[in-house]
Amino acid sequence: MAGQQNRNGARKASRPTRTPTSTAKIGARSRKSARKPPAGTGTRRVYIPGRLHPELRVPMREIPLTPTPSANGPVDNAPIRVYDTSGPWGDPAFRGNVRQGLPPLRHSWILARGDVAPHEGRAPRPEDDGAPTRKPPRKLAPRASGRARKPLRASAGHPVTQLWYARQGIITPEMEFAAIRENQGLELLLDQVGPAAPHDSLLHQHPAEHGMRNTENGKRITPEFVRDEIARGRAIIPCNINHPELEPMVIGRHFLVKINANIGNSAVASSIDEEVDKMRWATRWGADTVMDLSTGRDIHTTREWILRNCPVPIGTVPIYQALEKVGGKPEDLTWDIFRDTLVEQAEQGVDYFTIHAGVLLRFIPLTARRMTGIVSRGGSILAKWCLAHHRENFLYTHWDDICQIMAAHDVAFSIGDGLRPGSIADANDEAQFAELHTQGELTRRAWDHGVQVMNEGPGHVPLHLIQENMSKQLEWCHEAPFYTLGPLTTDIAPGYDHITSAIGAALIASHGCALLCYVTPKEHLGLPDRDDVRQGVIAYKIAAHAADLAKGHPGAQYRDNALSKARFEFRWNDQFNLGLDPDTARSFHDATLPQDAAKTAHFCSMCGPQFCSMRITDDVRRFAQQHHIPDAQALQSALDLKAQEFRSHGAHIYLPSQDAR
Amino acid sequence: MAGQQNRNGARKASRPTRTPTSTAKIGARSRKSARKPPAGTGTRRVYIPGRLHPELRVPMREIPLTPTPSANGPVDNAPIRVYDTSGPWGDPAFRGNVRQGLPPLRHSWILARGDVAPHEGRAPRPEDDGAPTRKPPRKLAPRASGRARKPLRASAGHPVTQLWYARQGIITPEMEFAAIRENQGLELLLDQVGPAAPHDSLLHQHPAEHGMRNTENGKRITPEFVRDEIARGRAIIPCNINHPELEPMVIGRHFLVKINANIGNSAVASSIDEEVDKMRWATRWGADTVMDLSTGRDIHTTREWILRNCPVPIGTVPIYQALEKVGGKPEDLTWDIFRDTLVEQAEQGVDYFTIHAGVLLRFIPLTARRMTGIVSRGGSILAKWCLAHHRENFLYTHWDDICQIMAAHDVAFSIGDGLRPGSIADANDEAQFAELHTQGELTRRAWDHGVQVMNEGPGHVPLHLIQENMSKQLEWCHEAPFYTLGPLTTDIAPGYDHITSAIGAALIASHGCALLCYVTPKEHLGLPDRDDVRQGVIAYKIAAHAADLAKGHPGAQYRDNALSKARFEFRWNDQFNLGLDPDTARSFHDATLPQDAAKTAHFCSMCGPQFCSMRITDDVRRFAQQHHIPDAQALQSALDLKAQEFRSHGAHIYLPSQDAR
Repeated sequence: MAGQQNRNGARKASRPTRTPTSTAKIGARSRKSARKPPAGTGTRRVYIPGRLHPELRVPMREIPLTPTPSANGPVDNAPIRVYDTSGPWGDPAFRGNVRQGLPPLRHSWILARGDVAPHEGRAPRPEDDGAPTRKPPRKLAPRASGRARKPLRASAGHPVTQLWYARQGIITPEMEFAAIRENQGLELLLDQVGPAAPHDSLLHQHPAEHGMRNTENGKRITPEFVRDEIARGRAIIPCNINHPELEPMVIGRHFLVKINANIGNSAVASSIDEEVDKMRWATRWGADTVMDLSTGRDIHTTREWILRNCPVPIGTVPIYQALEKVGGKPEDLTWDIFRDTLVEQAEQGVDYFTIHAGVLLRFIPLTARRMTGIVSRGGSILAKWCLAHHRENFLYTHWDDICQIMAAHDVAFSIGDGLRPGSIADANDEAQFAELHTQGELTRRAWDHGVQVMNEGPGHVPLHLIQENMSKQLEWCHEAPFYTLGPLTTDIAPGYDHITSAIGAALIASHGCALLCYVTPKEHLGLPDRDDVRQGVIAYKIAAHAADLAKGHPGAQYRDNALSKARFEFRWNDQFNLGLDPDTARSFHDATLPQDAAKTAHFCSMCGPQFCSMRITDDVRRFAQQHHIPDAQALQSALDLKAQEFRSHGAHIYLPSQDAR
Repeated sequence: MAGQQNRNGARKASRPTRTPTSTAKIGARSRKSARKPPAGTGTRRVYIPGRLHPELRVPMREIPLTPTPSANGPVDNAPIRVYDTSGPWGDPAFRGNVRQGLPPLRHSWILARGDVAPHEGRAPRPEDDGAPTRKPPRKLAPRASGRARKPLRASAGHPVTQLWYARQGIITPEMEFAAIRENQGLELLLDQVGPAAPHDSLLHQHPAEHGMRNTENGKRITPEFVRDEIARGRAIIPCNINHPELEPMVIGRHFLVKINANIGNSAVASSIDEEVDKMRWATRWGADTVMDLSTGRDIHTTREWILRNCPVPIGTVPIYQALEKVGGKPEDLTWDIFRDTLVEQAEQGVDYFTIHAGVLLRFIPLTARRMTGIVSRGGSILAKWCLAHHRENFLYTHWDDICQIMAAHDVAFSIGDGLRPGSIADANDEAQFAELHTQGELTRRAWDHGVQVMNEGPGHVPLHLIQENMSKQLEWCHEAPFYTLGPLTTDIAPGYDHITSAIGAALIASHGCALLCYVTPKEHLGLPDRDDVRQGVIAYKIAAHAADLAKGHPGAQYRDNALSKARFEFRWNDQFNLGLDPDTARSFHDATLPQDAAKTAHFCSMCGPQFCSMRITDDVRRFAQQHHIPDAQALQSALDLKAQEFRSHGAHIYLPSQDAR
């Protein structure tokens, strides 16, 4: 099925493959494929080995740069390495396809720990793909069904979570893998550029000065640091032992800010193939995690296809599927059905679960006078259940049971915020903060079970109320990573909520939010298509990176610097390739100056050839050099006298102010 | 010429006109015209009279809302009034066209003050439209040439600026006009909704509670307050006495945040007609001011067409035209040529001038080691002039002469930031702050001449360095309004700089920046087309409004509330019409659910009919009502016992954490 129906990759993957190498050029031919990395022509896939775990091959995308022209001939610019979330799909040497699924990268790491065992697992049931009246799920190819591998679960009497290992002092391959990714091109940069590179004198500063202006020089993220942050609960690596295809990444406020892209079909629109395609498309542009929020039919099957092909952590909201199993009636939900769904999804390999256990019965009336009531789907379902039965939320009462399932598969919690505000008017109200406080209690209890935890947050919050969200979450939830949806900073721009929310997302991330759930332009209006997914991902990469700069992450600013230097030197293609979306940048440039020559021209269409500020700046520098003005201080001394002289004359030139009228 | 070539408005304007009324419906037929207001069908132009100046007719756009369905029948929703920058073009009753230009709204106000006189003015010269070798400018229609009116200038021995009047305690019509606009729909809202409107009890809160949560109830912007802020230099009303077509607006940090759209042709692309069209297009979407940054040929003529048709303040950078007059060679610039250009533009009616007088000779070497040198065009030109002549910037040495020209026409200063950072690496550096300090000195001196002043700011600044820009500007520039370009919060997203900069713009505006210069998606890449202008304007309306909410502007949140209420009640058309871009919102909705029925359906495409959180919330509320749960407190009391009981049981249910492993 996938070979025919999946639009991207499957066919491309069947072309003659090259011998896998650690550094293979990506050709320009795969232009329309999700396989094509965003940097366009010339960028390469490279792999960094581990130090503690030499077998690791941590993927990065390397962007080669053209030389800087100078009077003494061209001066090379070191290539730039960037974080790559596209997985094997981004490596042109990879020969797999969607039908086969990705190779189980982590399988041997997991088995080597000797604390898990395969078992028969839960048998698939007809209702897994929707209500019984619906047609049976489509057959899966054996490999992609996941049934070629029996599910694993903990077998040694202790949790098999990264939190448990971290507490034991163990640095897992997952931790080192994530640590290496965090440094992006930093090591390359520090290794290659000495303190006084000759071409570096006038035109640009040393990277150690510029690239890490707000951090200690040379600070790198180490595997030990990752372990310590996980042990303290301040970071998580979502990585279900049944999702071995995953390339580990770390979420925490001392690491790069990550972004999540939501996909998922609904009863109204979209198909499995579209969702798999969206997952690959989202990770091509930089989504660090993906949530499958499917609510229609084929939930189980859609998730299976996504998981077997997904190199990033997959999150779900299990109550959505549980609700489908009871025909969409919240009041018919039971703990048994929910528990069964958790096991089903944990055995499939979902990496984190959103669970709305903080929606307590006594909080629900707090929402009745809100502008927009309860806008979280999960929150609404549980609110209805609570009121219908007049009993406490069964997710809260069964929290410890849930924790045990999570601990046995290393599924991380994303403790839901079912009472998050759905409008500016409702931001930071009593209902929201009551739930946040409960999230803190649940966090502690999950940690006691050895389960990794992050907390979900809003939503719709005006700028001046954002910081309070972050500080209360840090305090009440004991520094567990925060994962917010935006927040949207105004309600008046339907069609542009990727922007209203990117503003809030950048701000809350700069205050410490670790994971940002993207919002697409279609938010509140419809289901995102491919272009919406790209718009959402890019807007959130911007927000995340803006926050990384503000936080002084050591692996952040070097890319801004490389791009700015390329821009200043009119290296147009480098400028495009270093950007988040080279295709769009190039097409915008070409809309005004389509000629190839314009890509190397020392001017741009904004000002024309005779009137370019960067060109004039070049002249200024040449002039300063020719006239032997070595630095600011020397000139200042020379001018000080002149300036004083001038001012003493000036006192006579200027008319007294009242006279001037 | 305009009748044939201007794409929007001119032809539409010639259709049969209706009798002008203060409230006329805008039909759906003008769909493709700049004339059509953004709210789509059903919105109306209304005019508010003045109190001190009863002859004032302050335009607003009124958005009628559909009723809320309820068990007791439909309940009306009051219409919402919003700020309208589109001028007479946004009034379907207006019968003018581009060839005629707009009516001189302020002409009588200006003459009534008895302190200006017409004179022959400066005669147009061939070089006004570019270097002598170029073809002569196209002929203007008499009215649009501006020559039907002789230029005015001060004649009573004092400045004719709003600052001077404010200091005398005079409330001009301009001040009252601007004050009324600031309140938007607030007065209507306060007048119509009593403290206990019956339909208001459960579904939504009283506007006085929601719409002004961060302000004193009932606080309105008064003409007296506008005058006081202008007198203190904290606000300006840019309004050249030779631009009577302008509808006055106020810029200052205690008012609504305003946005500027840049237009202008260059040597490479675009024509006069395109620029006039872009001006009308930008103001249709909400641009509060427009800068004409033309640098190519026909500079004088382009500006004339724009001014005669523009209802918002027009700003320019006069050095651009001066440079054209000397064939593009900065070193050939002289004070005489610059002075002549100032007079030319002041007599045409330009409302504010960007003048880079803070680029002092001694600051220039501070830029030599920057990542991106000097990126301001004006800054580069003056830096080159300074170094070429080894003399102080002639704009600085002639500051008082410049002030006298400004004072005689009420042209406001926008003191340029020629040394603003062009990259994250260069943010907040010595060169930038040296110039900002000088801007403060120039501000004081301009005020001594009675001239209105705002200061320009960066540029490219990471999030954590933004607040410092604002606080230093307030301190050093004595609280004159700040006018920033973005700032862009990262350099890595060419093609998306409307987003990288909207983030910075929202933040700096929330700290007090008064005017935000928009950035379009084409920034750094090419000249913006119509769609880029819209994208830029909308992104900046979002940033400005997010800041208005954060600042607690009394006239801000009621629109968010109205939209959120419409969203919650599934009044889809109201939701579209209340948004910044109804066309886009509607088309996004229709992409998934195109049927007209879906516009009234109580579900949306995201979740499908059976699974909508807002619907579930409705159920929750109904349930709460049916079971006589009057409010949170009553339920809480009832549940407290139950909850205690539950927790005491819980202690036995939960396994001790260590056992759970």
